[in-house]
Amino acid sequence: MVLLSGGLDSSTALANAVEQGFTPYAISFRYGQRHSRELAAAQAVGRHFGVRDHKVIDLDLRAFGGSALTSDEIAVPHQRSTDEMGHGIPVTYVPARNLIFLSLATAYAEVIGADDIFLGINSLDYSGYPDCRPEFLEAFQRTANLATKAGTEDKRTLRYHAPLIAMGKAEIVREGTRLGVPWELTWSCYEGEDAACGTCDSCLLRLKGFAEAGLSDPLPYRQS
Amino acid sequence: MVLLSGGLDSSTALANAVEQGFTPYAISFRYGQRHSRELAAAQAVGRHFGVRDHKVIDLDLRAFGGSALTSDEIAVPHQRSTDEMGHGIPVTYVPARNLIFLSLATAYAEVIGADDIFLGINSLDYSGYPDCRPEFLEAFQRTANLATKAGTEDKRTLRYHAPLIAMGKAEIVREGTRLGVPWELTWSCYEGEDAACGTCDSCLLRLKGFAEAGLSDPLPYRQS
Repeated sequence: MVLLSGGLDSSTALANAVEQGFTPYAISFRYGQRHSRELAAAQAVGRHFGVRDHKVIDLDLRAFGGSALTSDEIAVPHQRSTDEMGHGIPVTYVPARNLIFLSLATAYAEVIGADDIFLGINSLDYSGYPDCRPEFLEAFQRTANLATKAGTEDKRTLRYHAPLIAMGKAEIVREGTRLGVPWELTWSCYEGEDAACGTCDSCLLRLKGFAEAGLSDPLPYRQS
Repeated sequence: MVLLSGGLDSSTALANAVEQGFTPYAISFRYGQRHSRELAAAQAVGRHFGVRDHKVIDLDLRAFGGSALTSDEIAVPHQRSTDEMGHGIPVTYVPARNLIFLSLATAYAEVIGADDIFLGINSLDYSGYPDCRPEFLEAFQRTANLATKAGTEDKRTLRYHAPLIAMGKAEIVREGTRLGVPWELTWSCYEGEDAACGTCDSCLLRLKGFAEAGLSDPLPYRQS
């Protein structure tokens, strides 16, 4: 079971699960993000890796707002330096997002009998998101096993894998390339235009990763 | 912030929060349960206690199934003895439900600045649900504070209150009565008919609670 957003990280996490020999299932979320382009990317990447079943869950996080990604009243920042990104939790933080997504993935995993849940979080190239840290994931795993029939009566152990947790973006690009991730199908930009903006935090980190890995990103960029 | 299903327990938890002096906010879920009657009950009870804002979140847990409450292929059991109920997790268990609902309540609480989240879970009169136990709630609280801006950068502490956790149904009925819970507005039956069935686990536990408290339940029952 892979949480698949269609970005660089989750696509590489999926490739990693496939390499380990798992039969892949995927879950994605139509949560009110600024655009549906990343969902189309997730589905294309999923098909590429032969996922058995891909659930897309509708959940309107705009009901809460509180993030540049789920509220039109908060703008996505552009042209921030890595130094600026390193200070504090950015406005693109979506309240409790990974907690919510992992909880839903847990329900799906429980029903289909999957014990291994993969996600692409990483905390090295600082994203500032508290729900991308290993201590969060460890606490979540403990909680999920206490919360479910799977983890109690059924004596299964739900395991949450974050194979990229200690990787920087360049290392992820190298690893994804080795695993055959079709970068042209992925999407990272926080905006949803025909070409990636090249200036939001997500584009900047992605471009930095490709540059440092000495590879070129096949995606079209508005500023290139 | 109260997770309000419109049943006996969450209505009493709301009354408890109000008695403690909190300004109440409520969240409920249209999750694909068998009927919408419990949502109407939640809204009526919320109005009764003057909740400031009541969010109803749409989330289709039928996408996963795996429960008598979210799949038409699994029947709700009737006329089980308390002894039968005491054995194992019932088919009305919805995979990861409280994990999911608490995660969504956490997002809402984070955005509106609420630090205290109330829910009506209790584990004394055996419901068999793993996500109604205190050890689950403690683990969840730790996880939620690690997952959020609220619990990290903002140095808030999200606290999850389960004031009924150690109460039996009779005690809950007495406590709710003392706090002025309008029982006639609540709904507990797993089926959604005009009258409560009186024979599903939820009805049986409710009726037992009223009987042991020496009070009468104002709801209409099909078998009475």
